[in-house]
Amino acid sequence: MLASAAGLTVSGLGAGARAEVGGRPLRLGLIGVGLRGTWHLRNALLRNDVEVTALCDIDAERLALCEKMLAEAGRAPARTFAGGDLAYRRLLDLDSVDAVIISTPWLWHVPMAVDAMQAGKYVGLEVSGAASLEECWQLVRTHEDTGTHLMFLENVCYRRDVMAVLRMVRLGLFGELIHCEGGYQHDLRAIKFDPGAEFGEQGISEARWRTWHSVYRNGEFYPTHGLGPLMNFLDVNRGNRLESLTSTASKARGLHEYVERVGGPGHPNASVDFRLGDVVTTVIRCARGEVIVLRHDTNLPRPYSLGFRVQGTRGLWMKDGNQIYIEGESMEPHRWEPSGPWLERYDHPFWREEGEAAAGAGHGGMDYFVLREFVLAARAKAPPPIDVYDAATMMAITPLSERSIAGGGEPQAVPDFTSGRWLRREPDFAMDRS
Amino acid sequence: MLASAAGLTVSGLGAGARAEVGGRPLRLGLIGVGLRGTWHLRNALLRNDVEVTALCDIDAERLALCEKMLAEAGRAPARTFAGGDLAYRRLLDLDSVDAVIISTPWLWHVPMAVDAMQAGKYVGLEVSGAASLEECWQLVRTHEDTGTHLMFLENVCYRRDVMAVLRMVRLGLFGELIHCEGGYQHDLRAIKFDPGAEFGEQGISEARWRTWHSVYRNGEFYPTHGLGPLMNFLDVNRGNRLESLTSTASKARGLHEYVERVGGPGHPNASVDFRLGDVVTTVIRCARGEVIVLRHDTNLPRPYSLGFRVQGTRGLWMKDGNQIYIEGESMEPHRWEPSGPWLERYDHPFWREEGEAAAGAGHGGMDYFVLREFVLAARAKAPPPIDVYDAATMMAITPLSERSIAGGGEPQAVPDFTSGRWLRREPDFAMDRS
Repeated sequence: MLASAAGLTVSGLGAGARAEVGGRPLRLGLIGVGLRGTWHLRNALLRNDVEVTALCDIDAERLALCEKMLAEAGRAPARTFAGGDLAYRRLLDLDSVDAVIISTPWLWHVPMAVDAMQAGKYVGLEVSGAASLEECWQLVRTHEDTGTHLMFLENVCYRRDVMAVLRMVRLGLFGELIHCEGGYQHDLRAIKFDPGAEFGEQGISEARWRTWHSVYRNGEFYPTHGLGPLMNFLDVNRGNRLESLTSTASKARGLHEYVERVGGPGHPNASVDFRLGDVVTTVIRCARGEVIVLRHDTNLPRPYSLGFRVQGTRGLWMKDGNQIYIEGESMEPHRWEPSGPWLERYDHPFWREEGEAAAGAGHGGMDYFVLREFVLAARAKAPPPIDVYDAATMMAITPLSERSIAGGGEPQAVPDFTSGRWLRREPDFAMDRS
Repeated sequence: MLASAAGLTVSGLGAGARAEVGGRPLRLGLIGVGLRGTWHLRNALLRNDVEVTALCDIDAERLALCEKMLAEAGRAPARTFAGGDLAYRRLLDLDSVDAVIISTPWLWHVPMAVDAMQAGKYVGLEVSGAASLEECWQLVRTHEDTGTHLMFLENVCYRRDVMAVLRMVRLGLFGELIHCEGGYQHDLRAIKFDPGAEFGEQGISEARWRTWHSVYRNGEFYPTHGLGPLMNFLDVNRGNRLESLTSTASKARGLHEYVERVGGPGHPNASVDFRLGDVVTTVIRCARGEVIVLRHDTNLPRPYSLGFRVQGTRGLWMKDGNQIYIEGESMEPHRWEPSGPWLERYDHPFWREEGEAAAGAGHGGMDYFVLREFVLAARAKAPPPIDVYDAATMMAITPLSERSIAGGGEPQAVPDFTSGRWLRREPDFAMDRS
């Protein structure tokens, strides 16, 4: 349990930890190289401190594509693993792998992460919600038993505006935080159905697996892009915690209408009874008394927006409308200002210093930073900035929201995955040490 | 019960009802002529179809001010009633009063409305939340027992953008509605404390009474400006109804900080323990499966916004950012458009025809239309467009939200004040008969 104890007392990846890293690059294995895993590969190939030594996917075509990318980048070939759902276990046996990044369908996230921690690999886990609370505990217990670290790859935590707002929060510009909003508001209809009105066996890419969740489940499936940044603003698991939530789902219309329009009323999928409410609203109360509103909105035509709102005793920022108001600082009382100049003024050092390098990476640069932080933490074998407790907390929102909806909005207690250590843990995400 | 039955079968104030109105102006009594009642007087003086025949207030100065306004407008003097909380009952005895408008502190709304209906006066009731569910039933039962009508003066239902969106909803531009948001987001600190950091006995105007609610209660106090328009969009009580809600309050910081800043840390009110959470979030589920999110946000510095969002299977409108997206109609897929041109194109006939007259009235013209509709309905003795069932439904949100918050977010059933008649009642608010 020594490693575990260390994991709990070292507060995170600080400048000291980074300095300890030796000269050897991180030897990285990628488990899952679909669209998302391939983005990680692309970004890893831009780094001198990473060697991609192993690749795993059930799809040989994806592996071949990645091998070609390695060769074109002038990199050494990687060991490849295919041939079934459990091929990743052979990858985990390799001594030539220090760390893995898991970018597979949601239901594989926890089993693979658990196996990887048990194999002693530093784990980078792509985001999702959990299938059950038990899965979240499994992640936490495996980390505590093995001392192996897991970083949850919540990339929106590194978005430029989000990081600027984090700085503003920490500088007290909003005063004491009171109310925050966020969510995943992204029209995924053409991803849930691809090609045309197909999913499941007839579907490709995410439509092969992701859509089943919309058929049989009803809840906040994808809490992390909204919640991750808000957890940093609110010091969740580091002086604060999520205590309870209620969740409410609207009726489900969007997917059926889409299938009928794209595939025709006679299409077999037109008779599927999609259970996922088109808009799911989750309201979370924190131990320090702040309230978070999360929205999950993926079945309807709409422009993309994570809908952030950060509000305190001195003012608020809203992503929708790109507007901000800070009492006593904004030009006119009771009038919004454009948020742009504020976000520039409080640009985070990460972006100020490496914004240009980030620009080439995926998702507007967020992916650059999430990979960089993962690599630095894994090379140092240091606790990651978004750790297994944060992963469990975010992933737990999904099963809790399902329970609340099934219970007519009944409030659900959010487990304290830190077992009380949130009281003493200190904020460590992207600390501005400049 | 004949009148009552009529009230339930006549669907509302239609063109027919208006034509029946004779030549005699409506003889109106105003109960409460503080800031809000005086606005009604000002607007009534602009109308030829209204004679203000009686005024009541506990404050003789307000009555004197109103008498002066009448004289300056060349109108006959009104009977005035002062001298105590129950002086309004003497006003209700007058044969020279056909209708009353009640603009008093919240806790007087129901007792006065009940007395007025029992006296046979057509009632216009200013907005508020109820103190208890029982109060809401009292309104409904009194209407049903007396056959006297009550119009709830929810002025935001007549806001120009709101009415344009109502037209768009009815024309199906948003498709089938799925999710709506609204609320009361208005920095009231300088109203809750006036002058300086004073309220209660030392306060003036609304600070004399409104602030007590923030001291002793915690809930969605002011649901109507957000909910009223959404109820029209969603046909609530007319083919749909509010079924259940959950409510969650943030911590309370804003009022205390304001008192300390304005009055100094030694000010007696700095030791008051304000119970109203700074932001209260209420999530309501409708019988047809739509979800409504309401916010009450009155204790923090912020620009005014009712935060409307109206979302359906074809697109959505958001007041914040003044943006709209309609699939297949918006210029670019997945891109917001400014809402302005859409709101102009779908301008409601009310505004197209009388927008200029409305401009001189209070609250950007909304008050013109709410008074006009009240006067037309009262002169016709016809059911009003926002009736006692709507009033009870909106006012009930307040005690229900208090219960839910007290129960840690426990869901609360919303009573069906129509006793099932919502199944057959038809939408009637501001129907576009052009």
